[in-house]
Amino acid sequence: MTKPRSFCLILSFSLLFCLFDSIFCRLSTLLDSNAINPSLIEAQYAVRGPILDRAIELQKQLKEGKNLPFKKIVSCNIGNPQALQQAPISYVRDVLTVVLSPKLARNPRTFPFLKKMFPKDVITQAKSYLNSMPNVGAYSNSQGLETPRQQVAEFISARDGYPATANNIFLTNGASEGVRFLYTALVRNAQPGFHDGILIPIPQYPLYSALSTLSKGVLVPYYLDESQEWSCSIKSLKQAIGKARGEGITVRALVVINPGNPTGQVLSEENMKEIVSFCVQEGLVLLADEVYQENIWAAGKKFLSFRKVACDMGYTGEPVTKVGEGLQMVSFHSISKGFMGECGLRGGYFELFGIPDVVRQQIYKLASISLCSNSIGQLVVGMMCSLPKKGSSSYKRFVRERDAILSSLKRRADKLFSFLNTLEGVSANPVQGAMYAFPTITLPFRAVKDALNAGFAPDAFYCMQLLESTGIVVVPGSGFGQVEGTWHFRTTFLPPEKDMNEVTQRLGDFHKQFMDKYRE
Amino acid sequence: MTKPRSFCLILSFSLLFCLFDSIFCRLSTLLDSNAINPSLIEAQYAVRGPILDRAIELQKQLKEGKNLPFKKIVSCNIGNPQALQQAPISYVRDVLTVVLSPKLARNPRTFPFLKKMFPKDVITQAKSYLNSMPNVGAYSNSQGLETPRQQVAEFISARDGYPATANNIFLTNGASEGVRFLYTALVRNAQPGFHDGILIPIPQYPLYSALSTLSKGVLVPYYLDESQEWSCSIKSLKQAIGKARGEGITVRALVVINPGNPTGQVLSEENMKEIVSFCVQEGLVLLADEVYQENIWAAGKKFLSFRKVACDMGYTGEPVTKVGEGLQMVSFHSISKGFMGECGLRGGYFELFGIPDVVRQQIYKLASISLCSNSIGQLVVGMMCSLPKKGSSSYKRFVRERDAILSSLKRRADKLFSFLNTLEGVSANPVQGAMYAFPTITLPFRAVKDALNAGFAPDAFYCMQLLESTGIVVVPGSGFGQVEGTWHFRTTFLPPEKDMNEVTQRLGDFHKQFMDKYRE
Repeated sequence: MTKPRSFCLILSFSLLFCLFDSIFCRLSTLLDSNAINPSLIEAQYAVRGPILDRAIELQKQLKEGKNLPFKKIVSCNIGNPQALQQAPISYVRDVLTVVLSPKLARNPRTFPFLKKMFPKDVITQAKSYLNSMPNVGAYSNSQGLETPRQQVAEFISARDGYPATANNIFLTNGASEGVRFLYTALVRNAQPGFHDGILIPIPQYPLYSALSTLSKGVLVPYYLDESQEWSCSIKSLKQAIGKARGEGITVRALVVINPGNPTGQVLSEENMKEIVSFCVQEGLVLLADEVYQENIWAAGKKFLSFRKVACDMGYTGEPVTKVGEGLQMVSFHSISKGFMGECGLRGGYFELFGIPDVVRQQIYKLASISLCSNSIGQLVVGMMCSLPKKGSSSYKRFVRERDAILSSLKRRADKLFSFLNTLEGVSANPVQGAMYAFPTITLPFRAVKDALNAGFAPDAFYCMQLLESTGIVVVPGSGFGQVEGTWHFRTTFLPPEKDMNEVTQRLGDFHKQFMDKYRE
Repeated sequence: MTKPRSFCLILSFSLLFCLFDSIFCRLSTLLDSNAINPSLIEAQYAVRGPILDRAIELQKQLKEGKNLPFKKIVSCNIGNPQALQQAPISYVRDVLTVVLSPKLARNPRTFPFLKKMFPKDVITQAKSYLNSMPNVGAYSNSQGLETPRQQVAEFISARDGYPATANNIFLTNGASEGVRFLYTALVRNAQPGFHDGILIPIPQYPLYSALSTLSKGVLVPYYLDESQEWSCSIKSLKQAIGKARGEGITVRALVVINPGNPTGQVLSEENMKEIVSFCVQEGLVLLADEVYQENIWAAGKKFLSFRKVACDMGYTGEPVTKVGEGLQMVSFHSISKGFMGECGLRGGYFELFGIPDVVRQQIYKLASISLCSNSIGQLVVGMMCSLPKKGSSSYKRFVRERDAILSSLKRRADKLFSFLNTLEGVSANPVQGAMYAFPTITLPFRAVKDALNAGFAPDAFYCMQLLESTGIVVVPGSGFGQVEGTWHFRTTFLPPEKDMNEVTQRLGDFHKQFMDKYRE
């Protein structure tokens, strides 16, 4: 029962306090939610967002013995094969073992024993690495060790039939670091007067959107065509660039992910030629994310590098400085995918094509600021590009391991694709490549309403409920971008083959219950 | 013999062409010197700058058999011990060998053999790592694997006598990556209306200046006092912050490198207390670069962490949100320095102290955009913090190796310090810690003039001539910053001890010739 006057007094004091607090907070230099870089707050990376946070929480609860509707968390949110029991390629690990143990490798007493323990080609490769550097414990050249860069160049030359040189290769901590370097070189928006943008596919891998936000670059979206198996239509590219330029945006580059993530498409040669011509005409740097090049599943599809397509079209990789005169391209590859799945070791490379040397020097300087990428990852990149050859002592073992992984992944991709299309309101394109399915789901109106009331995007609502009921972690389509009013989720097919039936069973049961619950 | 008229015509055409070309180039979206991010072009990282480029060239010439005034390049430009024959700590490499070889570690047939080959504590540590993760080839938690983060927390707790928790620890690809994360969180200048700056010592390690340039953050310099053995005077800090604020700069953080790089000072407890109080009063985040904490050489000096000093002063590490209420600090450590020198493996950590959890979550998201740091580096960070203890089976070997490295480094530090002070016009402070000497050189006027005529900073001129005459690579003081009109260079004392006499001899001979040549 406060009297009106004292009420006014309290109100005035509160207002004053708020004002003081707000001024004080605005001026605070300490790290807090109101003084952190707004670009960082704005950046999103859904593959490891709130749904994964909840999964980590549930995992903890399971460990503490809490009774949940499931016994374990199944991480289908991320292409992380070795987290789901995929074994590493023995050849790679054997070579690393020798390289890391100078005691084993350089001691004449242990060396004979080493020869008994490891195949001959392992020793040869390890010694070649050891002889080409002081030690894996030394900083390397900031662009990467010479020997693995040479191996990458030879791999690219053989794959494409056009020579590549080590001078254009950078070794990085995974492909992500390379993409970050290119964003740093390309996006000038922190300077006044610049308004650079980069064309990014929707749906996309959220590294690209996150880096756009962090660098203040404009994300210029172009839509992949779901009705045409997620192909990339030139019409959509032209529309996107026209609209962006109309808004005063300087479009600098085009990101193409092939095989697609999250969409799994494998582009046709004809489509790739159109894309190359588009980049040449429009003066765009083609950023070719080709990390899934070994993961091709659809019959009749095969991987073609953008580099080979460009070279076939007559582009030479000589430095291009004028629009229309040739192609500028950077292509990315990684040890994390394919059949090696060495995600944790963080290795990747990118190759510059048609890029003037003055730019290479600037990227080299950028790399040198963090000194160099990790040497173990560098060596694994080298080995990815120089695997045991027919006749060498590890060859049979290597082929057995590789083929077992790839054929099992193909069976799982096929199984998941067929299964998803049996679900009510779910439709998935064939998984032509990569490690994911990205089905569309038609959600009942009531589910959409409930989701929005709960402050969730409808597909995030679906994914969160899937997690709570089954322990299966997938990523909502809203994390990758999608045509407005459509809903998707991305799931890997990486759980061990023996568990796949159970996973699809649980997903199917949940889906039925969810649809029954929300059906009108 | 062109006639005036046709001359005019040619001139007009040329002018038109230039105009067209300049407009065309300005609008070009292709990657070239005129369309690359200007911040990248502006950024400097002298440790790997033009002098190193020249050294790489000379190295190549030596390899090709060219006759030069020296037989080999001696890299004193960078703290890269294993590049100069320092051997890795066996315990660390042994554990990595087992962890990388699931075949060795999990196969009951090879396991008995493993037990014969490696000390018992190696096996125990390796198994503990293997049991706590699916595989080193899997992406880890973006903040780092749980077990090594726990080891870091225990190490910090024991070192300081105040408990630390794994939740505040981030594992990174070297300390540099951690510093980059903090710059990203702190500097808001890509947004309109912000003018954030960070206080950086002069001389500094050029990572800090490079990140300032790249992030568009203002480098607010404060000068270390060369006449007081490079100590950090509060007066100079106050002057620097006052001047910056007068210019409208929001000063966000203070970088302190202790032990100093390139300056080698070890701060006194009293000095550190003043610095902590200064940060608390002024609302600055203390960025404590403590990567050289194991490298203390001067008698009577010992390393004290800023965390211990702050805790001793009563600051608890509880989240601070108001200026004056406590200390916000981030401290950095690395596997690249100390006695391990595992530069190439890229491992580091940082600990958040007094930082609200909402900020930790944002940094976590930033780390997640590049997925995680390399797992091998993470494990080596864990081992750096949990080395063999008295009584364990590797202990004696470990102590022998560690002490040999540290005592040899100390002898080399002392030798270099004494030697430098014998040179005409050269004066070096005692190398109290870290891996460098940073002597001042008084250059003859004629040398300064010749340098400027040749387009060099005078100390860069000296260093380039040193390289050309002797093959010794050092870094000019201008790369680190110095009081105007003074000249320095930074040199490591990392060449193998047996080569040190020759290195000092060659440096001394060169110096005498240089001085004789330019003396008035």
